Amino acid sequence: MRIAITGAAGFLGQKLVARLCESGRLPTASTAETGADPAIAELALFDLCEPPEPEGAPFRVRTQAGDIADPAALTALLADGADVVYHLAAVVSSAAEADFDLGLRVNLDGTRALLEVCRRLPGPAPQFIFASSVAVYGGDLPEAVRDDTALAPQSSYGTQKAVCELLVNDYSRRGFIDGRVLRLPTIVVRPGRPNQAASSFASSIIREPLQGETAALPVPEDTALFVLSPRRVLDALCHAAAVPAEAFGACRSVMLSGVSVTVAEMIRALARVGGEEAVARIEQRPDPRIAAIVGGWPARFDTRKAARLGFTGDADMDAIVQAFVEDDMVPQAGH
Amino acid sequence: MRIAITGAAGFLGQKLVARLCESGRLPTASTAETGADPAIAELALFDLCEPPEPEGAPFRVRTQAGDIADPAALTALLADGADVVYHLAAVVSSAAEADFDLGLRVNLDGTRALLEVCRRLPGPAPQFIFASSVAVYGGDLPEAVRDDTALAPQSSYGTQKAVCELLVNDYSRRGFIDGRVLRLPTIVVRPGRPNQAASSFASSIIREPLQGETAALPVPEDTALFVLSPRRVLDALCHAAAVPAEAFGACRSVMLSGVSVTVAEMIRALARVGGEEAVARIEQRPDPRIAAIVGGWPARFDTRKAARLGFTGDADMDAIVQAFVEDDMVPQAGH
Repeated sequence: MRIAITGAAGFLGQKLVARLCESGRLPTASTAETGADPAIAELALFDLCEPPEPEGAPFRVRTQAGDIADPAALTALLADGADVVYHLAAVVSSAAEADFDLGLRVNLDGTRALLEVCRRLPGPAPQFIFASSVAVYGGDLPEAVRDDTALAPQSSYGTQKAVCELLVNDYSRRGFIDGRVLRLPTIVVRPGRPNQAASSFASSIIREPLQGETAALPVPEDTALFVLSPRRVLDALCHAAAVPAEAFGACRSVMLSGVSVTVAEMIRALARVGGEEAVARIEQRPDPRIAAIVGGWPARFDTRKAARLGFTGDADMDAIVQAFVEDDMVPQAGH
Repeated sequence: MRIAITGAAGFLGQKLVARLCESGRLPTASTAETGADPAIAELALFDLCEPPEPEGAPFRVRTQAGDIADPAALTALLADGADVVYHLAAVVSSAAEADFDLGLRVNLDGTRALLEVCRRLPGPAPQFIFASSVAVYGGDLPEAVRDDTALAPQSSYGTQKAVCELLVNDYSRRGFIDGRVLRLPTIVVRPGRPNQAASSFASSIIREPLQGETAALPVPEDTALFVLSPRRVLDALCHAAAVPAEAFGACRSVMLSGVSVTVAEMIRALARVGGEEAVARIEQRPDPRIAAIVGGWPARFDTRKAARLGFTGDADMDAIVQAFVEDDMVPQAGH
């Protein structure tokens, strides 16, 4: 089987490549049905900058740098066909808000270009696994957001993701692709350094203290979040391929099961793993702008559709911290 | 004030032009606020074929034939600026389903091109009044559909309308336009002849019998519909300009108030106006394909947002039949 990944140089993309290299296979709904071999024959990686080539991959790997909104580049990427396309490439939330045209071009035109190339591939419709976001929700929300809550995004990023969800659904309904849309909770703990995302602190307050550094907390401790570990996001990206298309029903989108947690609860989980000395490395630095943005995000979701489709989240915040320690923590220098 | 109308040669477009010619003015939220003159100075009409020029208009009228997805044509249309843009141009439901690329081009690319030209107009953001459709709803629906029910369209037309709703919302949030989206119920009684639309019979079974002709009824009499007269749609298109932007809240879309009615109730209303001889002109010609499509449409809506914003529907089915008699009925030849 052939798999293509856009955004392959990004944080999730690189982790997905590593996971596929490790397993060497990706059981899909059609391999389950036909008994076909789920062994991966080729991985085609795409990003704006040339994605790093994984070492020791048990299959052929092609890498390509290009513009996601350039149909010719995408046609070249999928020249050999594809059974599964992971579409992770995106301009992130803050960048899409700062540069409206860039967001439209990458997040909307890029997805459309990729959908069109997939539609025109010979053979059965490829699976199209699309990373959407909790940012599709906004406005007046119920106490617990459901899969059938209307999308009223309050950012250009969320709008572009919601638009692409609708297109993935219609392309699927028409049989051009076999789409699966995963709405991702806030991913915690992201490895690396703090960034400009409003949610950056949510990873920082676990990651930095455990790595012996200080972290800034810009929001009140009663701020609630809906979070999922990178490990479980990867599980979901792989599991998405195995779900029978019919199981999605009239809508190919599903909100993944996260953990509803307050910042205070996150800090208590940090204490249980890293001790009070880790907690002492968190500095309160209130930032009303960030508090306002994050305070507007829904933190409680009814994710029974995800459960019905067999997606599993983290058990609790402790499991999320533990996953970071096992998967991504950089040992402290001099310790 | 300057007003532009796309789809001006269509059924609703021509009626809107006639209504504006008659009144000569369009009170908007900003004229109400500033006391400015709501008198219309210019009407710019756009359609694929040159729209008919209304006779005796009390203001300047420009007509232009062109492709809605051609930015240069739209730039020419709005060269003098616009205070209000009515975007009615669309490839209809059955055509968008039959020709996917045409639907995307006209309904999605056309709307995007128009949004971009509006965004770049000098002066205050123009009002952008967009005709959406009940077709944005689909899939598993609650007993009564609400404005905050998730959009899961089950047609390419509905998908394209839903996508444009999201874009109109985001362009409005960013201040590029001042958008207002009206989700139209099934319009009954449309003047003219039966067409290929699945809902064509809903107008036919009133219009043809009253005009002395026979009409075919392809669905069971307990089929339920959500209907609105052309007269009230025009009221809504005009009123949309007068609603203060803030009143829309986090979402610029509103489902208009229709009448929930069964086919049997429609026929009883016909009998009250046209007598049993009119009813006798309806021929049962069951068509399972049409019955299946129409039977899947939601027929009950909670339209409290429309009521809150001051939109009014028809009192009942009798009022809808009466509106047809007064506004559009063609007297029978030889009577």
